Amino acid sequence: MFSTTRSTIHSLRISLTRPSLLPLAPIFASQRCSSSTPQAQTYVLKTPKGTKDYTDQDMAIREQVFSTVTRVFRRHGAVTIDTPVMELKEILSGKYGEDSKLIYDLADQGGESCSLRYDLTVPFARFVAMHGKSYHRFKRYHIAKVYRRDQPAMTKGRLREFYQCDFDIAGEYDPMLPDAEVLKVLCDALTRLDVGPFTVKLNHRKILDGIFEACGVPRESIRSVSSAVDKLDKLPWDEVKREMTEVRHVAPEVAEKIGRYVKLNGGRDLLETLEQDEMLQRSSTAQEGIADMRLLYDYMDALDVANKTSFDLSLARGLDYYTGIIYEAVPHGEREVGSIAAGGRYDNLVGMFAGTNKKGQPIQVPCVGVSLGVERIFAILQAKQANVKSNDLQVCVVSAPGASLLHRLQVARQCWDADIPTMFAYKENAKLNKQWEQCEKAQIPLAVVIGPDELAQGKVRIKNMHKKDPNQGLGTLVPVHDLVDELQKRLAEIQV
Amino acid sequence: MFSTTRSTIHSLRISLTRPSLLPLAPIFASQRCSSSTPQAQTYVLKTPKGTKDYTDQDMAIREQVFSTVTRVFRRHGAVTIDTPVMELKEILSGKYGEDSKLIYDLADQGGESCSLRYDLTVPFARFVAMHGKSYHRFKRYHIAKVYRRDQPAMTKGRLREFYQCDFDIAGEYDPMLPDAEVLKVLCDALTRLDVGPFTVKLNHRKILDGIFEACGVPRESIRSVSSAVDKLDKLPWDEVKREMTEVRHVAPEVAEKIGRYVKLNGGRDLLETLEQDEMLQRSSTAQEGIADMRLLYDYMDALDVANKTSFDLSLARGLDYYTGIIYEAVPHGEREVGSIAAGGRYDNLVGMFAGTNKKGQPIQVPCVGVSLGVERIFAILQAKQANVKSNDLQVCVVSAPGASLLHRLQVARQCWDADIPTMFAYKENAKLNKQWEQCEKAQIPLAVVIGPDELAQGKVRIKNMHKKDPNQGLGTLVPVHDLVDELQKRLAEIQV
Repeated sequence: MFSTTRSTIHSLRISLTRPSLLPLAPIFASQRCSSSTPQAQTYVLKTPKGTKDYTDQDMAIREQVFSTVTRVFRRHGAVTIDTPVMELKEILSGKYGEDSKLIYDLADQGGESCSLRYDLTVPFARFVAMHGKSYHRFKRYHIAKVYRRDQPAMTKGRLREFYQCDFDIAGEYDPMLPDAEVLKVLCDALTRLDVGPFTVKLNHRKILDGIFEACGVPRESIRSVSSAVDKLDKLPWDEVKREMTEVRHVAPEVAEKIGRYVKLNGGRDLLETLEQDEMLQRSSTAQEGIADMRLLYDYMDALDVANKTSFDLSLARGLDYYTGIIYEAVPHGEREVGSIAAGGRYDNLVGMFAGTNKKGQPIQVPCVGVSLGVERIFAILQAKQANVKSNDLQVCVVSAPGASLLHRLQVARQCWDADIPTMFAYKENAKLNKQWEQCEKAQIPLAVVIGPDELAQGKVRIKNMHKKDPNQGLGTLVPVHDLVDELQKRLAEIQV
Repeated sequence: MFSTTRSTIHSLRISLTRPSLLPLAPIFASQRCSSSTPQAQTYVLKTPKGTKDYTDQDMAIREQVFSTVTRVFRRHGAVTIDTPVMELKEILSGKYGEDSKLIYDLADQGGESCSLRYDLTVPFARFVAMHGKSYHRFKRYHIAKVYRRDQPAMTKGRLREFYQCDFDIAGEYDPMLPDAEVLKVLCDALTRLDVGPFTVKLNHRKILDGIFEACGVPRESIRSVSSAVDKLDKLPWDEVKREMTEVRHVAPEVAEKIGRYVKLNGGRDLLETLEQDEMLQRSSTAQEGIADMRLLYDYMDALDVANKTSFDLSLARGLDYYTGIIYEAVPHGEREVGSIAAGGRYDNLVGMFAGTNKKGQPIQVPCVGVSLGVERIFAILQAKQANVKSNDLQVCVVSAPGASLLHRLQVARQCWDADIPTMFAYKENAKLNKQWEQCEKAQIPLAVVIGPDELAQGKVRIKNMHKKDPNQGLGTLVPVHDLVDELQKRLAEIQV
């Protein structure tokens, strides 16, 4: 019902004239009116560029996504934390590679220089560094909004304000165990979300860096060349190569060598190929990465997730902070949607903030995590579902002519106090057909009908709104003092 | 465990020297290092002024508060929406009376002028105005953060970033019905939250305005005088009177007349006193307010909430947008905590944004709502609860010496796939006593023990960690293929 472009459709400039409102609002805003002649006030009726409202229908799907994902995260023992929407500017600086220009700043209103968070990973690292030793082994999830001053593309789900949904494991452990668990979590979350078949592309920064080193890329150009390689999922190799040589100043023969590697992908078989590669055998960085991947495959097999992954040497990921395995989940057959989850290992980020211990040694807290791009998942699910019931209502209290409004309130109160979601018409003399309409519109299964004759006997009627049985009439007579029990019995039956 | 001043305690300025990190991070941030000599980088390890992190323990209490409140809201048929954290600056301007100076602006980075939302009410009104006719009758709740560039007082729970939790009813209905329902919702939410006894102070803007008019306050000074009266809960009348006469330029005899009214409070009896007041009988504004209150008392009686309210003529509420009843909930005996919920009717706010219909008539959508100050409620509950279990873990997979790590992973996978929250030690050769410690620390009720002898028979052991029975030993032997069933049976017993 509501497309992602809804807010743009509704961007209408309206003008309203204060004087015409004044008789309706004798006091409201009188302070402002008193000092000047009442004048036209024009509002641009829109949300800020790149942001949108979520309606009740949107939220119903969104909460379904969040609760599904939360359940998977908590199943692995994760707890949740929350950090402020803004961080000191310097905390965010220099962590996002070429995307740092997209950081959203707050106005300097005579305080600190703050920016809106760009992701949930850097705030998490700051949190771990700040909250002391009991958080140096820590498994947490965090579902919250992040901010990027990007060029919005609503149709592609690229917004300036959007939700991320992160799961991370901090702590020094035996190698690749948390990494394997994060991949299990990622695969389980996407499976439960019912987004259709997907592949988790997998790579290792150390293998990638080993390849670049071995091919002759100077150390200081590695991140830059890496960014170019990362575009291989969108561009053909020739264009990536041109960018490498022309923009990133890589020698053509070096680019050619790189090309031979980064076009490779597969499973454990590819790992074996790399193990036998003579050039990589001379790179200790690559060898560390290969040893990690060997362990990871053992663990992924035990957890039954290897079959959902693809070892893909073109995957590079733009963020500066990754140090070990990196991954990106891509749904099948929806090329334009792009990745719906991504993450990796970042062993030095907490260390950048945490300083040194009492002995003067740098504090290191290695981390690995994944971030689900909920907006894209949400768009996929929204396309599948229509007309979601966004309320919990189970009962509508309906007055037949002659029944008093106060009776309606008393019956509703009885239901509310018994925790039964209930509504009634906000009209003293509500017409019966209008009340049925309301009941149907809100998709309410049961009506409690109050009539003066029944009330005189201490009774009300219950009618099943889903049953189209004409013999039901105004429903079944029930004594008022049995009403709640009877409703609960019927609701239990409906929910079975 | 974590006081609200935690983040200030942890505000430590640390310095870390890049060179010492470089061997650990050969690639990380190489772009920045390449252009300049590695140099010391200093981070202020704190959250921005007036903001704080929420730890897992904080969040456990917070989520309990949110789910309790959400349940009450949804019981009344409310749905939820979400709006962006920022709004166009002009949307927020002129709605908050003397507090407008506290609005938080974003930097102008070559776009629109935006501010962070100050409350959830103005964004709600903008939403209703913007999303068309199907939202002109709308009952919604919204739990989200709002922003005020106030002088923070962490100890009093006054922050720059804090949660609000709103319930509002928009729409043109028979008088005072939504108002009564909002009061029922407010009382039920506070009761369920178990914050202890409370009173909802209640007043009506029209009665208050009628009093000011009748006492001789010029119309343009009404909001200003009202702000002074609103301080009566914190200051004695003499000081409020001095502010009125000296700062707000009210004639002393006018102030004296006002004083006779605003010191009054009570229940339906006070309403009767006002009905008989000759001076107020001449004010049509006051008469409208009195008629509203009469209806409200009837409805509150039917909903059984009148006994939780106090009709209090000193209650004024600072926000410009209120037009009808206003209220504020105050916990008993905790004077310094202040109000824990507040709200009222605001009939003209949507109209300010909504412009005119096709016939050129102004669109009006009357609204009434309440906002719960969750931070204060949270502080009250936090003081009551200690050492909350913040994870969902039910099972810890423990290896006896000689059992392989891969078996641990396989057993954990079985549990996860059956939706049982499970953990295991991330260590290939984990010592048994360390694993018991972890199990205890995470408050996990059941351990699954894997030993090589048992595995050879296709069995594992289940041990109840809550039972201190020494005869339990390493627990009960169970065939691996019955493990999940057995765990589910035991967990069901524990939860009973």
